Amino acid sequence: MLIGHQSWEFRNRPVILGTATVVGPDEGEGPLGNEFDIVHADAILGQDSWEKAEKKMLEEAAKLAVENAGLTKEKIEFYVGGDLINQIISNSFAVRTMQIPYLGIFGACSTSMEGLAIASMIVDGGYAKHTMAGTCSHNSTAEKQFRYPTEYGSQKPPTAQYTVTGAGVAVIGKHGRGPVVTGATIGRVIDMGIKDPFNMGAAMAPAAVDTLQSHFRDFDRQPEYYDLIVTGDLAEVGYGIARELLKKHRVPIEQTTYKDCGLMIYDLEKQKSLVQAGGSGCGCSATVTYGHLLKRLAKGELKRILVVATGALLSPLSFQQGESIPCIAHAVAIESGE
Amino acid sequence: MLIGHQSWEFRNRPVILGTATVVGPDEGEGPLGNEFDIVHADAILGQDSWEKAEKKMLEEAAKLAVENAGLTKEKIEFYVGGDLINQIISNSFAVRTMQIPYLGIFGACSTSMEGLAIASMIVDGGYAKHTMAGTCSHNSTAEKQFRYPTEYGSQKPPTAQYTVTGAGVAVIGKHGRGPVVTGATIGRVIDMGIKDPFNMGAAMAPAAVDTLQSHFRDFDRQPEYYDLIVTGDLAEVGYGIARELLKKHRVPIEQTTYKDCGLMIYDLEKQKSLVQAGGSGCGCSATVTYGHLLKRLAKGELKRILVVATGALLSPLSFQQGESIPCIAHAVAIESGE
Repeated sequence: MLIGHQSWEFRNRPVILGTATVVGPDEGEGPLGNEFDIVHADAILGQDSWEKAEKKMLEEAAKLAVENAGLTKEKIEFYVGGDLINQIISNSFAVRTMQIPYLGIFGACSTSMEGLAIASMIVDGGYAKHTMAGTCSHNSTAEKQFRYPTEYGSQKPPTAQYTVTGAGVAVIGKHGRGPVVTGATIGRVIDMGIKDPFNMGAAMAPAAVDTLQSHFRDFDRQPEYYDLIVTGDLAEVGYGIARELLKKHRVPIEQTTYKDCGLMIYDLEKQKSLVQAGGSGCGCSATVTYGHLLKRLAKGELKRILVVATGALLSPLSFQQGESIPCIAHAVAIESGE
Repeated sequence: MLIGHQSWEFRNRPVILGTATVVGPDEGEGPLGNEFDIVHADAILGQDSWEKAEKKMLEEAAKLAVENAGLTKEKIEFYVGGDLINQIISNSFAVRTMQIPYLGIFGACSTSMEGLAIASMIVDGGYAKHTMAGTCSHNSTAEKQFRYPTEYGSQKPPTAQYTVTGAGVAVIGKHGRGPVVTGATIGRVIDMGIKDPFNMGAAMAPAAVDTLQSHFRDFDRQPEYYDLIVTGDLAEVGYGIARELLKKHRVPIEQTTYKDCGLMIYDLEKQKSLVQAGGSGCGCSATVTYGHLLKRLAKGELKRILVVATGALLSPLSFQQGESIPCIAHAVAIESGE
């Protein structure tokens, strides 16, 4: 049901029945490397283009998520997903393989939680027995499309982020064992006038803070309700800005643990020269949430988490036309099913 | 609620409280020219880029749809929309102006009905009091991105379609006067191996037929249930193929009137040299449905219609990499609210 102005409360507590994560070698070398289902040693996955490699990662994650949920794909009524690539071809081509009715979405890197929110609502409302939410990103496809092909070896400023090579998929059902999705807050577009695509974290931080404030207001909650709050991919610069903004708006974030997936997926000491300010991309919050955080919920180390996936809704064309970067963030609350 | 394998029945009968359509000069000269709310004499709308013109059309349609619904934008909880442009910037930038919580979607030209289906489900399920579904396309932005800039004056084969310059927006509410959205069928990705982006209608026709068959199966209906069935933008070639496929699969389509929005929006006698096989683009089914068909429902000329919006989920990159064109179609049933 609608709660407040822009949030959904899922009273039927849809269950995350299974997930799967597939990543590339750089993510495998990060601190969460052991927690992903498949770590590829070569980011091209034996394909003849980076785009096909990205699609293949998503196909692998979707297949495995269905298996991990103890289902067959015929039991899944709807797949909800999208990615960063023009016309979200990674998802559309992967769904061609899966043959599941398909709702394509786009929220840049916030796609992960936009998908989980919609897929959970569909189940909560009785519009499906099982849904699947998926997303992916690939460092080489994103760099090629948004900045420069990696093969150019162009230098980057320290504010730049490194697009995660990874796919994450969750299967949601009405009944069963697993963590439950209890609510979601859908974000507004926030644009503070930042135009630098090498500083996305700074552009996205205000959107994350806006959605957090809306979430606490709509649910009449304090941050302490959650054991852990994570933003999607603000990385070093954006995370610092978000902390400052939360303080400025008197959001008592110190009552809980607040982290950022973009700072969790890589070892920022060892991998600094590669990843600069940290991770980004649809695959960042998806793989950290489904690969790492849900395992901590299962172990009982966490009871309630809030994942605020952030997205920069720019395109190379809007950048070339001198536009600033509109940003958005969608929050999903996940709680232990016990 | 879920009905059948891939459909939703909206038992609370969400109401289309208001709509608005904005088109360019070529659509204004077509047979439905008088039915659109705003017809621009110049497709650039006084902007300094085609992309900004497309965004402005959508902003105008959204503003007017809210007014036509007798609401203010603060009453709309969620906007659901997307478009053809990379990273759906037309919608994201328009929503930046609107400041309504935003679910970005992508289904190529099927985006119109994907948006209406999701926006209706959100209201039907009690997840909002009011939602808005919108989409747009612009001939010059689409040509530039998918084929060649119009300024090149490149020749086209007779199977090519002409992207509609138009935006269509609907406001959906739980209560009120207006036509009601009674159900939707979400399509699967169908790919028959067609690779020619100048023959999209042929590529999309099998997806339309698949969704029609699924719709009749899920709702246990015959085509005669509807006074009118329209596909989105198959145009001349695809419409002929769809009719043949329906006959082959023994779908008794002759029981009802079956048309295609891509053949309705232009005068194919007078405008043939411009539009070739007919219209296409997200704006095609959106403007024909919201501008023309809903007026016929209001007048009592039609009681029940089914709009099957079709989408070709290719990107210039997937075409360049030799991939065929995956297609999809989403169907929405709209009935007179009386």
